[in-house]
Amino acid sequence: MKAVGVVVEYNPFHNGHLYHLRESVKKSNADIVIAVMSGYFLQRGEPALVSKWERTKMALQGGVDLVVELPYAFATQKAETFANGAVSILDALHCSYLCFGSETGDIAPFLHTNEFLQKESEQYEEYIKHFMQTGVNYPTALSLAYQKISNRKDTLDLSQPNNILGFHYVKAISKLNSNMIPLTIKRYKAGYHDKDFASTSIASATSIRNSLFDQNADISSYVPNDTYTILEKYKEQYGVFHQWENYFSFLKYSLLTMKEEELKSIYEVEEGLENRVLKLIIDSHCFQDFMEQLKTKRYTWTRLQRLCMHILTRTSKQEMNLINQHETSPYIRLLGMSERGQEYLRSIKKNLKLPIISKVSGFHHPLFEIDLRAAATYFMIFPEPLRSRLLKTEYTTPPIRMSY
Amino acid sequence: MKAVGVVVEYNPFHNGHLYHLRESVKKSNADIVIAVMSGYFLQRGEPALVSKWERTKMALQGGVDLVVELPYAFATQKAETFANGAVSILDALHCSYLCFGSETGDIAPFLHTNEFLQKESEQYEEYIKHFMQTGVNYPTALSLAYQKISNRKDTLDLSQPNNILGFHYVKAISKLNSNMIPLTIKRYKAGYHDKDFASTSIASATSIRNSLFDQNADISSYVPNDTYTILEKYKEQYGVFHQWENYFSFLKYSLLTMKEEELKSIYEVEEGLENRVLKLIIDSHCFQDFMEQLKTKRYTWTRLQRLCMHILTRTSKQEMNLINQHETSPYIRLLGMSERGQEYLRSIKKNLKLPIISKVSGFHHPLFEIDLRAAATYFMIFPEPLRSRLLKTEYTTPPIRMSY
Repeated sequence: MKAVGVVVEYNPFHNGHLYHLRESVKKSNADIVIAVMSGYFLQRGEPALVSKWERTKMALQGGVDLVVELPYAFATQKAETFANGAVSILDALHCSYLCFGSETGDIAPFLHTNEFLQKESEQYEEYIKHFMQTGVNYPTALSLAYQKISNRKDTLDLSQPNNILGFHYVKAISKLNSNMIPLTIKRYKAGYHDKDFASTSIASATSIRNSLFDQNADISSYVPNDTYTILEKYKEQYGVFHQWENYFSFLKYSLLTMKEEELKSIYEVEEGLENRVLKLIIDSHCFQDFMEQLKTKRYTWTRLQRLCMHILTRTSKQEMNLINQHETSPYIRLLGMSERGQEYLRSIKKNLKLPIISKVSGFHHPLFEIDLRAAATYFMIFPEPLRSRLLKTEYTTPPIRMSY
Repeated sequence: MKAVGVVVEYNPFHNGHLYHLRESVKKSNADIVIAVMSGYFLQRGEPALVSKWERTKMALQGGVDLVVELPYAFATQKAETFANGAVSILDALHCSYLCFGSETGDIAPFLHTNEFLQKESEQYEEYIKHFMQTGVNYPTALSLAYQKISNRKDTLDLSQPNNILGFHYVKAISKLNSNMIPLTIKRYKAGYHDKDFASTSIASATSIRNSLFDQNADISSYVPNDTYTILEKYKEQYGVFHQWENYFSFLKYSLLTMKEEELKSIYEVEEGLENRVLKLIIDSHCFQDFMEQLKTKRYTWTRLQRLCMHILTRTSKQEMNLINQHETSPYIRLLGMSERGQEYLRSIKKNLKLPIISKVSGFHHPLFEIDLRAAATYFMIFPEPLRSRLLKTEYTTPPIRMSY
């Protein structure tokens, strides 16, 4: 049995994801698909729309065979760390392929760029530092540095978010000396930055989320029926699609009761940002308001959202530094599986390169502590007794099994 | 001008307090009354019913001339530390007298008991330790130890809460070598533990609070008109009388996102209590529920409420240890004054033994940081934009001035 891996957030799972899944199977000719998926908080520094269990169901119903969690410590980071964590998990699960979406659908430029940058890495790093010092944000510095050193025609446009991720998957595979073969498929319609619906059946997750928060918009044409049902049911049962505004009181409380020393110890708090957030939070009425005041040219919106998220989950530099040396996940948390996924898991179980968490309360790892805090934070917005019930699900929910 | 000091919480100011004030003036023949009052959180480990500014107004309207704040680090502690902080402030303000309520209204037993226990202190401490080891709580151990060594008829019944406080005022005065003369007046009706209204115009603060939380009960006979108006207006304007239940979400969030190490560093967390609170909080639906589960013979309800309050305000052992050596307040925060109070303040200003905080944002002291966190926590329960507005009052409200 051969497996193809995909790296996803499924926030929510939509027709574009379904297309990507099917194309990945076609391209790889693999027997099963493994998705490594972010948990409760996402790369852009936001809470997921619905819980990871609901998103796992969406994935399984869409055709994924194994859903495993990308730990918070990787899921909420810049592309490089994000990719390293995801690739290390797919590699540990013996995936033969990793398939990602890209603008052109051609893998060659990714491979060339990786080789090229390995050769030129010193020069590249120097340029990045140089551009950071001019006051631009990190992604811009990467892009400018890259422009400086690249003159070959077959290299990538690294200003495209999806190309950056793809590049880091390829880089992580080669860094890990993994046998996984990277594949890419052309992204279908709907650019990453689209805010409005295209008149097709594929729309970006961003535009779907915006529609969900705007009660009147209908998203049924852009997501599979199963996703639609799960989303409807979640809203009905829990009354909410999670967004930052729901957490603003906890962020404010957290900030205003944090000692200066602890605030400075929070991951991504640096260069006097602690003074800015403290000064601005007291008078901010909502998260949007707070972020708009906080935003400067120096930092991207995403970078600042992540900072807020780490304050909310009280994630420290010291904890995150635990991943900096190896950048491989120390464990695998299984969220769901199809019958074929289960069969595959049985076949590789003896050769697993990482431990699978079987009992949450019995597993201890400093990075897993962050996952547990993130789960607790995610459910904190609910009234009792719903909150207590949901808080316990993190400890009691077995991997979701789906039969055909 | 001579001043008599009183130590109060005024939660809320009621007819019994009014009686105490007037008797204190009579007994001391002083020109003005200085009240040192707890801020947002109280000795029993609870939030005050209404903000300290409202309680300051009640005090001034009741006849107090100067209202100063007892810092959180003293206000939320056992009788000894509470008394040390309060006495140090009254002494710094050159009070000639300190007048407290007691069961008998006779100061002699307090003085005798203090002398006696100074002589027998070693034996006394040993007995306390001994009884603590048998598993009883702290107040019971004090009382039992005291019974063991005291056989004189003119000593105190130290099982009465008001006697314990009074004893510690007298002890603190003598420890501080202060010139303040301790006075006591007999408490009028309504015992400390009364939960039901007596059929007179004096009721305990506890029974008045219970009536306020029970919407139907009328408290107008038991509080001065001014208090009644202030309470009515507060409820109308802010929609709430503060109680623990309002803060439960923040307590739960705080506990479930706290690292084990930090939880252990919180003041009053000891002897494995951190495991108990963590285990119980996840499944508790409200504060009452949580406390009932947490309660054991070993700890009083008050002790456990204080523990929760320190978790809520994230007050650490390290911070609280700052007061353990001297147990005198390092600063005075003025909350309000009458014209005579202002005149008195002018007359002693050059000889003040402690700094008066004139500008909140410009004053820095580790213990004052706790006061600021307590204020932020207290207002966290309100919706925006009210919350932002109230949060700022801590920095912008000048001492309240009252003219006759």
